[in-house]
Amino acid sequence: MRNVAQPGDRHRVVIVGGGFGGMEAISGLARAPVDVTLIDEHNYHLFQPLLYQVATASLSPSEIAWPIRFLVRARREIRTVLATVTGVDAEAREVILGDGTRVPYDTLILATGARHAYFGHPDWEPVAPGLKTLDDATTVRRRILLAFERAEGEPDPQARDAFLTFVVVGGGPTGVELAGAIIELARSAAPDFRKIDTRAARVVLVEAGARVLAAFDEKLSAYAQQALERLGVEVVLHHPVTHCDAESVTFGDRHLATRTIVWAAGVRASPAAEWLGAPADHSGRIKINPDLTVPGRPEIFAIGDTVSVARPDGNPVPGIAPAAKQQGGYVARMIANRLGGRGALPPFKYRHEGSLATIGKRLAVIDFGRVKLRGALAWWVWGFAHIYFLIGLRNRLSVAVSWLWVYVRDQRGGRLITRGGDRHDTSET
Amino acid sequence: MRNVAQPGDRHRVVIVGGGFGGMEAISGLARAPVDVTLIDEHNYHLFQPLLYQVATASLSPSEIAWPIRFLVRARREIRTVLATVTGVDAEAREVILGDGTRVPYDTLILATGARHAYFGHPDWEPVAPGLKTLDDATTVRRRILLAFERAEGEPDPQARDAFLTFVVVGGGPTGVELAGAIIELARSAAPDFRKIDTRAARVVLVEAGARVLAAFDEKLSAYAQQALERLGVEVVLHHPVTHCDAESVTFGDRHLATRTIVWAAGVRASPAAEWLGAPADHSGRIKINPDLTVPGRPEIFAIGDTVSVARPDGNPVPGIAPAAKQQGGYVARMIANRLGGRGALPPFKYRHEGSLATIGKRLAVIDFGRVKLRGALAWWVWGFAHIYFLIGLRNRLSVAVSWLWVYVRDQRGGRLITRGGDRHDTSET
Repeated sequence: MRNVAQPGDRHRVVIVGGGFGGMEAISGLARAPVDVTLIDEHNYHLFQPLLYQVATASLSPSEIAWPIRFLVRARREIRTVLATVTGVDAEAREVILGDGTRVPYDTLILATGARHAYFGHPDWEPVAPGLKTLDDATTVRRRILLAFERAEGEPDPQARDAFLTFVVVGGGPTGVELAGAIIELARSAAPDFRKIDTRAARVVLVEAGARVLAAFDEKLSAYAQQALERLGVEVVLHHPVTHCDAESVTFGDRHLATRTIVWAAGVRASPAAEWLGAPADHSGRIKINPDLTVPGRPEIFAIGDTVSVARPDGNPVPGIAPAAKQQGGYVARMIANRLGGRGALPPFKYRHEGSLATIGKRLAVIDFGRVKLRGALAWWVWGFAHIYFLIGLRNRLSVAVSWLWVYVRDQRGGRLITRGGDRHDTSET
Repeated sequence: MRNVAQPGDRHRVVIVGGGFGGMEAISGLARAPVDVTLIDEHNYHLFQPLLYQVATASLSPSEIAWPIRFLVRARREIRTVLATVTGVDAEAREVILGDGTRVPYDTLILATGARHAYFGHPDWEPVAPGLKTLDDATTVRRRILLAFERAEGEPDPQARDAFLTFVVVGGGPTGVELAGAIIELARSAAPDFRKIDTRAARVVLVEAGARVLAAFDEKLSAYAQQALERLGVEVVLHHPVTHCDAESVTFGDRHLATRTIVWAAGVRASPAAEWLGAPADHSGRIKINPDLTVPGRPEIFAIGDTVSVARPDGNPVPGIAPAAKQQGGYVARMIANRLGGRGALPPFKYRHEGSLATIGKRLAVIDFGRVKLRGALAWWVWGFAHIYFLIGLRNRLSVAVSWLWVYVRDQRGGRLITRGGDRHDTSET
């Protein structure tokens, strides 16, 4: 068989992006006769669903991130490249890196994810950072912790209140989890301060739509909102944010003095569609074929948050980890089938396994479709599901210990203000 | 008794610096009738002796640092201020902060530590970062890890060799520990790379003096050097570094192409002597009185790495954690005695408990004076001593787990390249 070939003669798969989709494609290609090059701009695979816990100092960065090289060290056919991709030359079948290097491929998988969308206001990003990368999370953590520090030293009551007001924009799972975690952090920090009462901190969750957790069942949305409000979070619905700056946020007719805004609203796909000149939706997601290939380019697959693919009922496949993983697995099988001469697979079909969101310590909602859970039981299911999915025994153990510790003692190991790359903050520290 | 006074009327102690000396003074003042203000430019107390393990990705920052507020949360009489001190108005008895705020004191303790000294070449600092703060450690970690990444992608053999050459300047404990840890990191990283053999990495330890670990017994110095050389470290003695830049280092007549230099040579005291106009030695250390007060200012104490104090034999008290802690404890007793009307203590007397340095996994040297240990036993003593001294059960457990894991499996949890505040690196990543 031709494809069980000599080194150098094997089919070259290039994967851009070591997130959930890219890593699942790698797993699926374990027995395929291919050489793989994995390109990512970070040296780590990140468990994004727990980023909000780094941002609120419950977990450390190394508890939710693993060096990609380490994860694939046993797979000698995989080459890992730490680089930023700036384009694709689809005619020459080459990926172009930031330094001009070209990486040739026979099959390309684009799994480049998404960033935040500021609805045409990129100038809001410095004052309202999002939560997509580890650097985002440590930036948000630093800002939240510094806000308490500055409030403690601030003699003017109005200025102090602004430091103790935290605004989360966007009522999806990330926004809900962040808002709950920030108010719990404020509660637990109270004994550390002498002049301020951190329990009086305001956390405001601002959502443009009619309810939080819009992807969930309406009853679970209502439950989540009530649970947040019982925790002390102010939930504001039907109010798109119209302005952000370093000292305030405006939504509708309301104007709020705040020094900490976190952005958990829209997303914008990576520029993969632009690299290819491929058709894209309004968020920049490539409109791919039902077999996850890019229109007109059967040798290029695209998966995860950088694509738009419709489910049979017309609704889009959600931008969550299980969807990216299913797509990565599908593409790996497709490549193996093609090389094995076994023909194409039927179109990709997304299986929705459920939607999860935590609200606070011991509270969560889970929408499995027919089965819906809420409250403490949902929280335990959520916790075990996340620990289970974390790759690598060490981190599973370490995360379990960290969570248990925070839960039992309310000690937060991650509560360090380090300088980081946030130039907007460093001058003030 | 006048000093068992009402709140607001109590003796005000201001401590600048939350390192070993400052924190020990805090402990010692637990029962004294004083209000304490602790000022530090970071929000955490750092276990500096393990910084090199963060720099070489064995430990995470949160495993060797604890929020100061958290450590003193039960002590309601202590106020914590996150701020940079820029001066002292000794006449007015006020500490001056970066934003112009003045903090009045009745007794002042300066425990402001030291930074690196570049022997009149401050321009070397960006290319040869030292190892004093968490940000230093993550900067060094990022540079080491990026050097391997860039070597892997570098087609030119000479340029590749430069990326795989690591130079540590200074043969004291920090330099020895770093050099050993870097070469072990290089060994353990080998299976992660495809094009380079990280085991061929060169680690060069450059020392200006006649031996490494000059503060130790000569036999232990010789043993440490041999142990380093067996690990593969090249030890160069009698060679002061005369030039550093982004691509090379020069010492004596030797010129070495390298992309990673770490500075573990001289130290320079904090500017505390300048704030006071106090007499200082050539390293900027305040020449204090035998009772650790600043000459002419009995209400100002200075301790730790920012002071110079002679032992009865004429040798200086070493700049190590136990010395700073003994001084912090002495000053706390002195303040309590004064307030209790019990008169002055006899002059401070340093008790040398021993000198420790690790060389690599399972190798260390310990100089207790009469008793000298080396090899595996010394390593275990070192490990237990450090775990014992780490404050807080949680971190003790977590550090023990991390070390055990690295030891058993050679997995390094901290091996993440995050952006950080190192502007010299970010443009290249």
